[in-house]
Amino acid sequence: MSGLNREHARSLMQKAGLDALVLFQPENFSYAIGASGGVATMWRKAGGAIALVSFDPSEAMVAIVSDLSAPALRRFAPDVDVREHRIWVDMVDLSSLGAGALTPERVTAAYREQGLIYPRPERFDVARVLDLLQSALREKGLEFVRIGADLEFLPAADFQILKSKLPNIEWADGSDVVRRLRAIKSPSEIAYLRQASMLAEAGLKQMIAEVRIGASVRDLSEAWRSGVKETADASDIRDLTGLWDFIAIGTDPWSTAGIVEDGMIIKADVGCLINGYSSDGARTYSFGKPSLVAGDIFHALAHAFEAGLAAIRPGATFGAVHAATLKEMRVAGYAEYHRGHFGHGVGASVGSEEWPFISAGNTEVIEPGMVLAFETPFYAKGVGALMIEDQLLITEAGIDVMNTLPRTIVDLS
Amino acid sequence: MSGLNREHARSLMQKAGLDALVLFQPENFSYAIGASGGVATMWRKAGGAIALVSFDPSEAMVAIVSDLSAPALRRFAPDVDVREHRIWVDMVDLSSLGAGALTPERVTAAYREQGLIYPRPERFDVARVLDLLQSALREKGLEFVRIGADLEFLPAADFQILKSKLPNIEWADGSDVVRRLRAIKSPSEIAYLRQASMLAEAGLKQMIAEVRIGASVRDLSEAWRSGVKETADASDIRDLTGLWDFIAIGTDPWSTAGIVEDGMIIKADVGCLINGYSSDGARTYSFGKPSLVAGDIFHALAHAFEAGLAAIRPGATFGAVHAATLKEMRVAGYAEYHRGHFGHGVGASVGSEEWPFISAGNTEVIEPGMVLAFETPFYAKGVGALMIEDQLLITEAGIDVMNTLPRTIVDLS
Repeated sequence: MSGLNREHARSLMQKAGLDALVLFQPENFSYAIGASGGVATMWRKAGGAIALVSFDPSEAMVAIVSDLSAPALRRFAPDVDVREHRIWVDMVDLSSLGAGALTPERVTAAYREQGLIYPRPERFDVARVLDLLQSALREKGLEFVRIGADLEFLPAADFQILKSKLPNIEWADGSDVVRRLRAIKSPSEIAYLRQASMLAEAGLKQMIAEVRIGASVRDLSEAWRSGVKETADASDIRDLTGLWDFIAIGTDPWSTAGIVEDGMIIKADVGCLINGYSSDGARTYSFGKPSLVAGDIFHALAHAFEAGLAAIRPGATFGAVHAATLKEMRVAGYAEYHRGHFGHGVGASVGSEEWPFISAGNTEVIEPGMVLAFETPFYAKGVGALMIEDQLLITEAGIDVMNTLPRTIVDLS
Repeated sequence: MSGLNREHARSLMQKAGLDALVLFQPENFSYAIGASGGVATMWRKAGGAIALVSFDPSEAMVAIVSDLSAPALRRFAPDVDVREHRIWVDMVDLSSLGAGALTPERVTAAYREQGLIYPRPERFDVARVLDLLQSALREKGLEFVRIGADLEFLPAADFQILKSKLPNIEWADGSDVVRRLRAIKSPSEIAYLRQASMLAEAGLKQMIAEVRIGASVRDLSEAWRSGVKETADASDIRDLTGLWDFIAIGTDPWSTAGIVEDGMIIKADVGCLINGYSSDGARTYSFGKPSLVAGDIFHALAHAFEAGLAAIRPGATFGAVHAATLKEMRVAGYAEYHRGHFGHGVGASVGSEEWPFISAGNTEVIEPGMVLAFETPFYAKGVGALMIEDQLLITEAGIDVMNTLPRTIVDLS
């Protein structure tokens, strides 16, 4: 399902002076259309799949996709105006012919009946794709207008081709509009992120149960992954599209060679992807009593987390949250702890950390519908990785934290 | 280990009139430097990590990376001139202080001794990164020169910043040089791809053993994955960085809902990644006797495969291989079978299919050191997915096929 709110898009386009958005980045295509752009996007070049979002919300979105992806997309998104271009993959539909007496001649006849009579390009034909874009723009009266493309993605070489093929368009950078659109989640996006966060915590419960002297990072990673997968299976969740984990054991926060020993710190920063939407959350454990310094730093982080969390509300700036969080570290005596951000948006972007960021001096305002990961990490060689991270939804009234596990440094011995 | 041959790079730069290459794409950075650009590359924006490759092979390569990645990179690649920029991640080394009596004051003193006394940016500071690039260029006498950047990757918005920050450089598209460099594999790249191909076949052996009436695509995928992982473990292969599979069962080549029944076709197109290098290979099986048409098409594909394979040799054009392969399909009576390419380079690029392509009319010449996937796929609704794909190294003498499994349509019933 598309996460894109057309009224919001119109309002943002109006402010930016844009008549339409043309989206080339695979993640932006999937966001706007609600389905993958397909195999032709593997090279992340312009034209594998393109989404056109007009200013006017009553105009159907246009999706330009491969002839391999088009039939399924038409069924999945009947409101989208799907246009197709031939790619390298040969295919034919022989299902109406029966399987028995098909000869090469009857196969050939099927190709011809289906219009599959032209050689296919090596990959895809960008000139053809841009012709389709030009036709769609013309039909929608978007010929001599200002259009926002995702220029923070669009490769410079492809942008040259675009400008020369569609010279009447004034191309502007639509990246900011897309970023702001994506920051406010739809109900289905929120549901994906909530489910992803729930699975990640289920994995942590299984991981915890496996912690024992001698356990390796890989053992814990595998326990976490099994916990996620078993919970997904048991809950009949079929759209788990990915998993990632950064687990550290012991005093080197960057090593993956740690083995559980007495007194060690265990940090698990993990995420699950549901339909491409990645959760982000972290907990810290100890096996036995942690070192005094680890305990002291964690104590400060926990206070900083509480203070920052209390500052997160609609209408506050991201900078205010950063300041409230950092202040507690300063109060605790950590005068040179510097952290560029204490969290970020989550979603289905190219990186697991997406705009906006809880960073110093950031005057952007927290808005209802944002889903954020809020985190207070401390990485010190000789001590280990210490971290608390929750995922939360901004509501009209405040915040809705999606995590349920205790934020304390639980002793697993 | 870097796969980049500096002499080859010089020769290609000379032909292209370039004085240096500056590489921004994460995959190109990893290729040139032989190690990941690190966490700051997650957004695929310019500056997370940059590699500078001078024309003169005796000049050290420069890697501009985050202060988080720099120490490990200096140890890993002592010949690389590593320069670092601060990113959002706070970190400090407390390992020399002992774990007992560390107070916040002593922690602060450690930050100060290590020069970690400045606020960190929200993500990374692109202006600072480009200053580092400018200094490196100046030191190497590359101030008023023509430099190739990977403009088939570099986002248009970032290219604007680059041009305005370094206005004395004439920026050209270095993508073609990079593509040609990457197409000729080093011994270690060949070893990665060979190992990946071996693991993928080990997975297929396990998958075959699991095929029975009622088995689903997911069952076969899991069997393949376990086979790969168990073999990797048993062989102490620790750099398996990824897995992918496209398995189809039955008459719909695009469905993942197929279940093994009598007479069904099973196609497994699979790849393993070793250090990011992805193998690509495919086999087709039947459970019981396949339909007559499936058998007939497979017979034609097998002849086409043989003919194409016989045409692959150093000095031949890719177009000649495409023609030899397609000709056998025409001889068999498939007059409208069209396929954009019958294979492609393999490596560690952004897409699993990399340049060059075995495509119609392609006048590029096959060279020793290339590793190619050669494939003859046929996708027909009502019949299924039929495919043979091998991975092979081009040698001075001919070809070295990395696959060992029979190419016939084996009956698994």
